[in-house]
Amino acid sequence: MTFEVNILGSSGALPAHFRHPTAQVINHNDNFFLLDCGEGTQMQLDKFGLKRSKIDHIFISHLHGDHYFGLMGLITSYILLARKQPLYIYAPQGLKAIIAAHIDITDPDIGFEINITELIEPETGVCSLVIENEVLEVYYFPLDHRITCFGYLFNEKLRSPNIIKSKIGEYTLTVAEIIQLKQGKDILRGGEVLKNKNFTYPPPSPLQYAFCTDTLPVTKNYGFLQEVDLLYHEATFLHNDEERAAQTHHTTAKQAAEVAKQLNAKQLLIGHFSAKYQNLNMLLEEAKETFENTQLAIEGLAFKVAN
Amino acid sequence: MTFEVNILGSSGALPAHFRHPTAQVINHNDNFFLLDCGEGTQMQLDKFGLKRSKIDHIFISHLHGDHYFGLMGLITSYILLARKQPLYIYAPQGLKAIIAAHIDITDPDIGFEINITELIEPETGVCSLVIENEVLEVYYFPLDHRITCFGYLFNEKLRSPNIIKSKIGEYTLTVAEIIQLKQGKDILRGGEVLKNKNFTYPPPSPLQYAFCTDTLPVTKNYGFLQEVDLLYHEATFLHNDEERAAQTHHTTAKQAAEVAKQLNAKQLLIGHFSAKYQNLNMLLEEAKETFENTQLAIEGLAFKVAN
Repeated sequence: MTFEVNILGSSGALPAHFRHPTAQVINHNDNFFLLDCGEGTQMQLDKFGLKRSKIDHIFISHLHGDHYFGLMGLITSYILLARKQPLYIYAPQGLKAIIAAHIDITDPDIGFEINITELIEPETGVCSLVIENEVLEVYYFPLDHRITCFGYLFNEKLRSPNIIKSKIGEYTLTVAEIIQLKQGKDILRGGEVLKNKNFTYPPPSPLQYAFCTDTLPVTKNYGFLQEVDLLYHEATFLHNDEERAAQTHHTTAKQAAEVAKQLNAKQLLIGHFSAKYQNLNMLLEEAKETFENTQLAIEGLAFKVAN
Repeated sequence: MTFEVNILGSSGALPAHFRHPTAQVINHNDNFFLLDCGEGTQMQLDKFGLKRSKIDHIFISHLHGDHYFGLMGLITSYILLARKQPLYIYAPQGLKAIIAAHIDITDPDIGFEINITELIEPETGVCSLVIENEVLEVYYFPLDHRITCFGYLFNEKLRSPNIIKSKIGEYTLTVAEIIQLKQGKDILRGGEVLKNKNFTYPPPSPLQYAFCTDTLPVTKNYGFLQEVDLLYHEATFLHNDEERAAQTHHTTAKQAAEVAKQLNAKQLLIGHFSAKYQNLNMLLEEAKETFENTQLAIEGLAFKVAN
């Protein structure tokens, strides 16, 4: 099962050094989800060979322009391409009014539903379900930025246990029995009990991806992020700019690494790089001092979510 | 004196084949003017080494997204960069409401004036002044698109005659006399008349650049465009798509060339290429059959306005 994060942009608010503002495509089992939609996202999709048409769900962290200014362009392209399937957008309050203001101007013939859910701010440390399908849940949770801002957590569901293939022939298991076993149940045959554990092996552990931008360092209150497999955490500044990071409600590379360590994350991805850094190596080195398994969210790269 | 057109984007409504939507920077004597501001314009400025900060005047043709979706990103960057000098934007009615909707969300601290002039639609064939400086006038005029849409005409003013340098010593001309001559006047010295024409040679002819997108072919009603030095005219389609061009109020390459021929333009630049054409050579060839001095407005190229 594919579970990967495609970086389309990871620039801070001011695009510079040919870096684009925040946007990511999550490919989970060929379901595609867009996280943030900075200016130029649709061109970045094209550049990196990802199809606009495959995206049905868009999650916006907050309404600073570098996280949503690409949305109207993408929606307009969907209109031009005669999209039919509904589009679902999740964002803090305010987005509906902006999109309406744009659409009012030209009153285009829109052949698909645009469902915008303006998410209500949950309490600190609380994580609420946004959507789910058979194998995945997406949650949102509050971050600590200058305006209302949400993180998103992609949480695989626990899969059914796998049947040990050799047992099927050996015990001539029926389809009904296999279904029972996959539901975790034992099988009764006459007086005999066939113990589930002897016929199955456990499924792979469910994987988690967390997207945290823009924010002060995520704290240990966020218990639901413990042991997260891949943590994207913004790291706008180097730690010698700690004060500026605090004032602007951003995080330093060192702080992002401390978050990853506290949460016992498997892997850390840092992004939202300030325009002041042309070369990003110092940010990477600073984070690695605290949390070795760190990578830079460079646009064009795809990162696998794995145990 | 520099007078050149820098192409930042010339894609049609749907960006494709790594082409960006419409935006151009006019450099006239180191005064920089932005014509349209499609999504990604600020990144294109950066890519082609043009400074955001040098732009004080932005002219928007119409409020289809591919001509203005980059505006909020650019304004936001000006805010982040603590811009001080006023920004002047000229556009059809409706832009103020859109910009207000965006700004209302975050209520940023804006340290400069944003002056938006919503231009009133002039009658067909009428050309009205938008701004002028000592050496240049910018006019707007109506185009024929599905919504209100303006063309812009950059018109150099007639310069003063040049003094023949050898005459200065020969006649020991005073500063006051030189000023008189440059104003086109003769000089009275005692009873003698020094004829202006014997002391000066004519200045270079004033140059004109016209920007016409999106529109049905500009007609011969537009007398003020006669003999224009450089005509940018949209050419969204090949002529075998004439019907579609007419329905969508666009122009074919052949029609754009016919316009250039009718206006007796010196040079034609075509753009606003439909996503259906990956290779643009056919559009160029089609236009050249009617008007030889045609070029493709490829992003990254700069075109000199010249007699």
